[in-house]
This record gives sequence, structure tokens and C-alpha cells, in this order.
Amino acid sequence: MITINENYLKLQASYLFSDIARRVEKFQQENPDKDVIKLGIGDVTRGLPPAAIAAFHKAVDEMAEDATFHGYGPEQGYQFLREAIAKNDFQKRGADISADEIFVSDGAKCDSGNIQEIFADDVVVAIPDPVYPVYLDTNVMAGRTGIFENGRYGKIVYLESTKENNFVPAPPSQPVDLIYLCFPNNPTGTTITREGLQLWVDYAQKNRALILFDAAYEGFIADENLPHSIYEIEGAKEVAIEFRSFSKTAGFTGTRCAFTVVPKECVAWDKAGNSHSLHSLWNRRHCTKFNGVSYPVQRAAEAIYSEEGQAQCKALVEFYRENAKMVIATMEELGFSCIGGINSPYIWIDGKMDSWEFFDLLLNKAGVVCTPGAGFGKCGNGYIRISAFNSHENVAKAMERIKAALR
Amino acid sequence: MITINENYLKLQASYLFSDIARRVEKFQQENPDKDVIKLGIGDVTRGLPPAAIAAFHKAVDEMAEDATFHGYGPEQGYQFLREAIAKNDFQKRGADISADEIFVSDGAKCDSGNIQEIFADDVVVAIPDPVYPVYLDTNVMAGRTGIFENGRYGKIVYLESTKENNFVPAPPSQPVDLIYLCFPNNPTGTTITREGLQLWVDYAQKNRALILFDAAYEGFIADENLPHSIYEIEGAKEVAIEFRSFSKTAGFTGTRCAFTVVPKECVAWDKAGNSHSLHSLWNRRHCTKFNGVSYPVQRAAEAIYSEEGQAQCKALVEFYRENAKMVIATMEELGFSCIGGINSPYIWIDGKMDSWEFFDLLLNKAGVVCTPGAGFGKCGNGYIRISAFNSHENVAKAMERIKAALR
Repeated sequence: MITINENYLKLQASYLFSDIARRVEKFQQENPDKDVIKLGIGDVTRGLPPAAIAAFHKAVDEMAEDATFHGYGPEQGYQFLREAIAKNDFQKRGADISADEIFVSDGAKCDSGNIQEIFADDVVVAIPDPVYPVYLDTNVMAGRTGIFENGRYGKIVYLESTKENNFVPAPPSQPVDLIYLCFPNNPTGTTITREGLQLWVDYAQKNRALILFDAAYEGFIADENLPHSIYEIEGAKEVAIEFRSFSKTAGFTGTRCAFTVVPKECVAWDKAGNSHSLHSLWNRRHCTKFNGVSYPVQRAAEAIYSEEGQAQCKALVEFYRENAKMVIATMEELGFSCIGGINSPYIWIDGKMDSWEFFDLLLNKAGVVCTPGAGFGKCGNGYIRISAFNSHENVAKAMERIKAALR
Repeated sequence: MITINENYLKLQASYLFSDIARRVEKFQQENPDKDVIKLGIGDVTRGLPPAAIAAFHKAVDEMAEDATFHGYGPEQGYQFLREAIAKNDFQKRGADISADEIFVSDGAKCDSGNIQEIFADDVVVAIPDPVYPVYLDTNVMAGRTGIFENGRYGKIVYLESTKENNFVPAPPSQPVDLIYLCFPNNPTGTTITREGLQLWVDYAQKNRALILFDAAYEGFIADENLPHSIYEIEGAKEVAIEFRSFSKTAGFTGTRCAFTVVPKECVAWDKAGNSHSLHSLWNRRHCTKFNGVSYPVQRAAEAIYSEEGQAQCKALVEFYRENAKMVIATMEELGFSCIGGINSPYIWIDGKMDSWEFFDLLLNKAGVVCTPGAGFGKCGNGYIRISAFNSHENVAKAMERIKAALR
């Protein structure tokens, strides 16, 4: 008899976005004349950089002719892209990462979801709260958690991000094995300093733990003192894997390209205490279960590292950052305290009331959709997340409406 | 301490293609004046169908403008593609599959590798020999096998494909839970009749087993009596998941688009005997660990279902089939018996000697690279696989050289 992976039964149905959709639909039915402005979802809204478009077209033309056609590419990505990444995203910032430590993939969600497969079933996992749900759900599926009770899964060590710690958790007092960190953070928009990140690297070194560092929002960092990569931190290459994405920095959410860095120095152990290269293990996983990213997409991604590509990406990010400034100005004027939005597309707002209550208030009084913080974990209650991904006009209109409704 | 998934240590290093590369390199060093013709790898060589190229360009242009830009799409694929697939690949052939039973992905390798996650760790797995190694390796990684001894992993039920059973294994005498089948077969190129496939469906029904049916080479079926999909077989919707790909039928190996069919009727059980929808489980897995296929790629895939797209795909397949005919004619003239190559791009040749010996003979005497059958499993020894993916000129030249060398 074919039996199922019963760990799936422990998963909580993710009602967050369907709950939002249901409430929005109800509002629109009751108010057919009012338009709703959506500042909820973390998806970009602007066209791809022209440099990426030109390279994309050129590569599609190559695929049309036998002489220039590309069949299966290397599973890890083409050398042209791996080298551009290593040079521009790491070596230029003093992080000693080489092209063969880069694994190109079709998404940071996929990689951050799949990476846990190469670790033992019984590792102790530390996960932030609030959090991007994929880290948690993929460990539930793999059986590394207990059941869900009182808003928390058993066995997980939750790293609470609250007002008290400025939304940057410190390393836990107990030893853990696998640590998920995300900076600039989704959903809070907070960042971590070099000193703060050094604490985590030192903790990992001391406890022989591994950090999974999600830097998908790195492109939004404006503050020159902040690290873009964990490999800018001393000792990180032995204890950290980093996830990056072209989604938010170059608008690739619908184009699909990302990458994961697994340094050659990075190891984990077997139960007998022998060390094993995580680069080799991930390479085996990647080659067995993945077949490389679409060739034209890799060419489009490469083009964002050209001089004009970089300028165009900067302009894209700057555009969204202008929106974030408008949101912060309005919400602070109304007396709400805001986190994020400076080095991140997300603004995390203390609503001083239940998340869903605040959500309903903004929807019903202002016709604006946000994301209730409670959807990201227990510590998210009382907060909402507003996303800067929209047009200037829509954000300006949304802020005017919120002002009028809440003043 | 971070510990590894020790099942990875059971994996056998796949020396097949690196062994081939090493031998080819040695030959070329010793014979710098001789060119080598490669008929080993199963990768297409011809440009994408013009209909796909046109749609690809059009979609890239949409991505350039804010007004027509596409961000995150549905994880399961856009409705336009799911509907085109359901209608053309299934409903037109009398298989009652609907659009919402189609999960679009970036590769059949990924899907056939990932699907095992939704099943229990201790299901008994039946895998063909010779076989596409992904089925086996992903189950090793998940801990469903014992160690590797005498050319076989413990706990796996091997379905032997030999001359004695015409390379189509019958259902085993013992009950198994999860069955991998691939028709047209990689590597043997054999096909299965409706009656033969009905035996498997009946077995699965009787034993409450599940069939994972890999139909990636379906586009090569020329014989009108052969089933293209397992869902053409009575009772299959309750007991089978099917993998399909645009790789071989439309030349998408470097473009990346495939899909998996999970019918709503398809169930598996928990240990307590309650049934669960595999559609729901796979949907949860797909949405948690995957973020959809690149929008322009989905538009390119949709275009192959247009009238001209279908004609262009047919011409592509016909082109490779001509090559296969040349290979069969030559090898049979030389007294070798050939399997496959009629409804498949692969010809499986009984070399009447050790696989590697035959490989070396063709390389050293004729400068032709094939794939030694032993690389696909114990039952592959004595055979070689020749692939029809190359130009007419190269295949003709390769056959002339083989004739001259072996006559």
C-alpha cells in the first residue's frame, strides 16, 4: 500500500493570503464603486531593465538556429553568469567567493526550501519569528518539528524579533545546529550590522552550527556600512550558505533566476564525527534533482552586471525606495512607529492593535490592502507589513486615503 | 553540531559520463587528426520551433513594459498553458485530464526527483533495470534503500528489462508500493502496448500501489496503436502520476519546461488507513518549494500547441527519426540486433560483448562515441545506447565509419 509522508499532515493550512483575498473580495462586493490599492504582496511591478531585455532577445535568437542553439547547460549554471556573480556581488566587496562556489537556480524559494535535504533529520533548527514561511514549512515536511500547538511547532527554536531587541535576534543561549537568518529582513525590513552578524558567525563557529543566510533583498541596502553578504564577515565561509535572487533587485520574479553560494570550506559532520564538504553534497543534490536555468534567462541575468544594467537596477530599486519614503512619512505623521523601508522594500508598522483589526481598518476605511503581521508568526501580531512595490501614483493615493481615514 | 543526511554517503559516484569523457579525451590526444562524432548524450541539437521563438520574443517584449509586465505567476503554471496541455495532450486522445490536474515545472528530472518526498520513508520501491539514474538516486537520498552491494541497492525491487521479456518487465510477484515506469523507455527505446500497461494499472489497483509514469519521450511515438499517456488506460487515474516534458518533443532541453499530471482521483494512505489526495499533497509541495516557470518560457511552450507549432515539432521529431533509421539499418546490416529507435530517439544495441569493450571498439576504430549500457544498471551490460540526436551528416558519417571498422 502506498503511504504518504505524514509530516505533511502537521502543516498548518496557510490561510494568510486566501484570508486576505476573501476580505478584499467582500469589501469590493459591498463597495463596487471604490477601487482598492494593494500594498500587500512582495512582488515587483516594473518592467525588466532594458539591458536584460536586450540580452534576453539576443539569446532567444540564438536558440532559433542550429549553429547557436543551446541544449542542456551545466546544472550549476553557465560559467559566464557564475563568474559575473562572483566578481560583482562578492569579490568587488572583498568577499573571497569564486565562480565554482555559485550554484545558479530558478529561485531562492526553491533553494532555501531544498537545502535542508542535505542535513540529518534530527538537527535542531532555529527559525526567526516573524518569518518567511518557507523555512518553517520545509522543515515540517522533512519531519524536523513536533506538532503545532499554541501557535508554535514543537522542537523548533524560535528566534524572536521584537521591539525589545530592535527586531534583530541575538544567538540563542542553547546550542542549535541549523540557523535561518534573513537580512534585509522579510517581513520586518530590518538590517543587521557587521558586528551583529559577527556574533552569529562566532556562535556558529563555537557550536559547529550552520547559518543559512537569505540575502534576497540585498539590492535594497543603501547604508554603506551594512554588509551585503555574510561572507564579508570573518570566519563565515566555514559556517554559512547564502541565498541570493535577481527577483527583487532586477525585477526577475516572473523571469526566475537566483543563486546559492556554498563555499568550499563549508562542512558538516556525520554521526561518527567525520567532516563532509557541503559543496559536494549540494552539488550532488543540485545535479540529481535540477537541470539548470533556461539559457536565455541566464543571459538576461548576466546583462544586469553590465554598466548600464547596474545603473538600471539601481534606478529600479530607487523607484521603490521613493515609495517606501512616502509610506514612512505618512505613517509616522499619523503617530505609528515604522521599522524597515530604508534598506528594504518593506515597512513594518506597529499598529498598536491586533494585526487583522488594523488590516480591516485600512481596507474598510481607506481601501488599502496590507499584510497582517500575524501571518508571519506569533511575534508579528500587532504589526502590519506594507510593501513599496507599486507605482508612485498608487502609493501617494493610498497614503492620502490613509491620512484622511486615520487622522 | 550540524550533521549531514548520511543517505548521501550510500550514493555511488556516477562515473558513467566522466568515464566516457576521459576515454574520449585520451583518444583525441593520441589521434589529434581524427574527429570524434558523439552519439552518446540524449540532448537535442536543432533550433527551437519558429512558433516557439516568435512567442518567446513577444513575451520578452511584454516583460519590458510596466503595463504588460508579469511578476510572480501561479506556481502551478499559467492557465493558458495548463489548458493547452490538457486539451491537446490528453482530452484529444480521450484521456479525461483537466487543466487543474496539470502542474507546470522547469523539468521532468526535477519532478520525477521531487515526487518521492510526498511518500513515506518506508514504501517499497520498484525500479527498472536498466534505468534513468534519477529514480534510483533520489530514493537513495531519501533513505529508501539499503547499501550498494554487487551492483544493486538493498530494499529496491528491480524490474529487469532483458531480451527474455522483450525489454518490458511484467508486474512483480510480490506487492510493491511505488513503481517507476518509463515508456518510450530511456535507455532501451522500447514501448509498451495498451495491454501491457493495463497489466500494471491492474496490479496497482489490486495492491494499492502507485505508478510514476515517465512519458518524456512520448512525442517520438509513431505507432498509432501505442498509448501516449497512461491515462488512456482504464483505471489509471486513481493509481498513476505522469511526467511529461517539452525537452525532447519541442527541443526545450536548454529552455526548460515540463509538467506533471496528478489526477484528483489519485490517493495514498496514512498508516491508520485514511486516504489522502495526492493532488493536494503535491500542490502543497509545489507551492512551498517552487515558484513557477519563467513567463516567456511558458508562452513559448504554449505556442507549440498552435497548428504551425505542432507541425514544426513533428518535423523535428521526424528529423531525428531519420537518423535512428540510419543507425538501425547499419547496425542490423552488421549483424547486431537493435531495440528501440522506431518510437524513440534511442537505439539499444546488443553488442554481444562487454558494454565498455564495445564502447572502446567504436571509439578507437570508428571515432564514434556511444553510451555503454552498463552505465544504466546491471541488465544494461552487453548493450550500448546510440542516440539519434545529431545532424544527418554526422550520423551518416558515423555509420560509414562503423561499417568500415566492423565489417
